[in-house]
Amino acid sequence: MDSCGKPHIWREETISSEPIFQGKIISLQVDTVTLADGRSATREIVRHPGAAAVVALLDGKLLVVEQFRKPLEKCQIEIPAGKLDGDEDPLVAAARELEEETGYKAKELKLLNAFYTSPGFADEKLYVYWATELEPGEQQLDEDEDIQVEAITLEQAEAYIAEGRISDAKTILAVYAWKLHQLTGSI
Amino acid sequence: MDSCGKPHIWREETISSEPIFQGKIISLQVDTVTLADGRSATREIVRHPGAAAVVALLDGKLLVVEQFRKPLEKCQIEIPAGKLDGDEDPLVAAARELEEETGYKAKELKLLNAFYTSPGFADEKLYVYWATELEPGEQQLDEDEDIQVEAITLEQAEAYIAEGRISDAKTILAVYAWKLHQLTGSI
Repeated sequence: MDSCGKPHIWREETISSEPIFQGKIISLQVDTVTLADGRSATREIVRHPGAAAVVALLDGKLLVVEQFRKPLEKCQIEIPAGKLDGDEDPLVAAARELEEETGYKAKELKLLNAFYTSPGFADEKLYVYWATELEPGEQQLDEDEDIQVEAITLEQAEAYIAEGRISDAKTILAVYAWKLHQLTGSI
Repeated sequence: MDSCGKPHIWREETISSEPIFQGKIISLQVDTVTLADGRSATREIVRHPGAAAVVALLDGKLLVVEQFRKPLEKCQIEIPAGKLDGDEDPLVAAARELEEETGYKAKELKLLNAFYTSPGFADEKLYVYWATELEPGEQQLDEDEDIQVEAITLEQAEAYIAEGRISDAKTILAVYAWKLHQLTGSI
């Protein structure tokens, strides 16, 4: 029994894996696994290539993009982000998405954190970078992107969170990090 | 054209929606939508019932649970959390998951924030509560849950993040909120 180095945690072994869907972005499979008591259970698993996002401060304001999010059927204000192309370096994706979506380039991108968005059913990992020394670049939206760029103050960001116009994990995390940066000077 | 109240943001209208999978927890559909330029595109959308999580401090330490996460094929340390049963009140789910997973009850649960974990492909909304005045309750794990409870200091939490043992959005957000609480006294 492989127990993740902990005697009381059971590592679920795969008995079988059924591929359900292979899309342009995500895939879905249902795995049958063994439980600690010997019974079996199924796990619904979404595979995702991963994504990169950027906390970019321009003259003390956060660069955000507003776009329509089909799964939510509403517009949302988020930090610039995009999925990785294949096994692309997240740093490269972050730099690309920042310039394509906002029209700004960063002299330096430092990894702030990387997290799994929803480890219960998906393997998506999101890399969040802290951008410094922004300079004008060239905005270039994907064919199916229709977004609006805005630079907001911390107070506006908190108001947007209160209004639900900012309500995704990466952007709320970015605002927390920004607040901590203002209080401690570090990221 | 419905533009989310913004003239330059196109709201994607659904031309057709193809149900792909209906599982125990998630479902998957592929929608065909209209774009601003009149062309069409597909959107791969995962539906999820939503979930609730709890930031519970016991004598200045954060209650966390370690468990195996099949989508990641590894063990992870996370704050207590669980999905909503149908249209269950997230507050009720948070109270239940806290007691069932950690064996502690909270006199008060205050909503810290609620966020979409991955708005690009899923509608999962996660409600995070701040628990106060913990008292012993009764731990009661689900049949297919095999977890280990731990109370950790902020320093341990940050070490676990650095080691990748804590690497999910809600728990990293919880640690940021905890840090801000220590610095400002508010949540």
